[in-house]
Amino acid sequence: MGDYPFLKGHGTENDFVLLPDHDGTIHGDLSSAEMAERVRALCDRHAGIGGDGVLRVVREGDGWFMDYRNADGSISEMCGNGIRVFVRHLVEEGLVEPSGPIDIATRDGIKTLLLEGDLVTVDLGVARVLPETKVTIGATSWPAVHVDMGNPHAVAFVDDEATLADLDLTRPPDHDSGVYPDGVNVELVVRRGERHVAMRVHERGSGETRSCGTGAGAVLVAAATADAAPRPATYTVDVPGGTLTLTWTEDDRVLLTGPAVVVARGTTSL
Amino acid sequence: MGDYPFLKGHGTENDFVLLPDHDGTIHGDLSSAEMAERVRALCDRHAGIGGDGVLRVVREGDGWFMDYRNADGSISEMCGNGIRVFVRHLVEEGLVEPSGPIDIATRDGIKTLLLEGDLVTVDLGVARVLPETKVTIGATSWPAVHVDMGNPHAVAFVDDEATLADLDLTRPPDHDSGVYPDGVNVELVVRRGERHVAMRVHERGSGETRSCGTGAGAVLVAAATADAAPRPATYTVDVPGGTLTLTWTEDDRVLLTGPAVVVARGTTSL
Repeated sequence: MGDYPFLKGHGTENDFVLLPDHDGTIHGDLSSAEMAERVRALCDRHAGIGGDGVLRVVREGDGWFMDYRNADGSISEMCGNGIRVFVRHLVEEGLVEPSGPIDIATRDGIKTLLLEGDLVTVDLGVARVLPETKVTIGATSWPAVHVDMGNPHAVAFVDDEATLADLDLTRPPDHDSGVYPDGVNVELVVRRGERHVAMRVHERGSGETRSCGTGAGAVLVAAATADAAPRPATYTVDVPGGTLTLTWTEDDRVLLTGPAVVVARGTTSL
Repeated sequence: MGDYPFLKGHGTENDFVLLPDHDGTIHGDLSSAEMAERVRALCDRHAGIGGDGVLRVVREGDGWFMDYRNADGSISEMCGNGIRVFVRHLVEEGLVEPSGPIDIATRDGIKTLLLEGDLVTVDLGVARVLPETKVTIGATSWPAVHVDMGNPHAVAFVDDEATLADLDLTRPPDHDSGVYPDGVNVELVVRRGERHVAMRVHERGSGETRSCGTGAGAVLVAAATADAAPRPATYTVDVPGGTLTLTWTEDDRVLLTGPAVVVARGTTSL
């Protein structure tokens, strides 16, 4: 095929290649086997454009469908930072009205977003806290809060900033494979103040990333549970790529708020 | 400033952001302090476009000047893979005539390139072999050939593929700081056949990279010296990002040949 359009954007340095394909005439569905190779080529950080995943922008009915695939070619139904970049793009192109709630279709159902200046908020849905588990890195184990955000998380609190900074996340932390038969996203957290934490994350299939939306949501839930914080509970969560604001509502929903920007646009033949 | 044009390309996965600025009206000289920040922003692999360096494309007299800066903001006079991508871009845009030698101005003087189909060859200049030195990774030391390619190299031959694959290049190999007061690029090499080697490289200031043009040149010189190969001596050098062909001429010059492609183009406001 010839050149086709792309954009590159990120939310707290969780970065994505966007593929406008409004009428579905340029690309196949990203979940199809034949698109896996193109997704990997686009996301290759040296031979391609580079990104943690691809967001294909497709019309669906009166609205928009976020067709998503991870950089490594694996399928993921939703991406909290990705959908925020997706909506930023739609607003910049005049494809959706920026005032009021914006509904976006995903493989995980309809998600609702809100824009406020530089910030984009997405409702990640209901979080559930499950029985305590543990994670191990090298010779150290920590008790961990098991949070189901639609995908599985284990959240462990470490003692201090130096411990967090020195963690080796080049390999997956050890976890209870009986509790997490399909692997787990592991968040390591240190407290920085009242309703303020910092985290690092190891994402299953991706390794350590600069940010993880559902991971920040799991951290909120674990911290607010430990603090017995009254709802709605709002926390500042520092990630390696920036700062997110998370709110746990009275009806157990998690709202993820943060910056989302498009930094480049053009064409590629990848 | 507003949006400005860019391209992204690579040679054996040594990748670059190109900035067309033919009349010098868009950007400052990349060696200027005020451009260091933009170079780092462009090369950031998550918040930017991503690359090992930036190539600014500027007219100089009847020809072209390659204004280069490394991703980390450090200054480098020349880049063997970068200049091959630079010429690929000029040819694709019809800015130079693809038949016959193409002269490009750099801070290291005029370089001459040749195109042949998908391949671009650059004359890297004269290589010199200096007295033997050694490099150390972890508990293992190897004798190393000291090759001056305009920049300093230490080339060590390891015993087998498994040794090469398992080397920890996340930190700079130890070297003789009396021999290399400004640091050194270290190549680890295994033989794959007659006139055929594979290498990994740790570049000073960059860490391990997918390819290094002058490093491949140093490997050629070290291997041809060890083999007492008659000149012109041509070797195949496999790098992590692809395959290069290197020739050491009768007058001690090193010719670097390999693929060079532009994969995307567009605009950015970074």
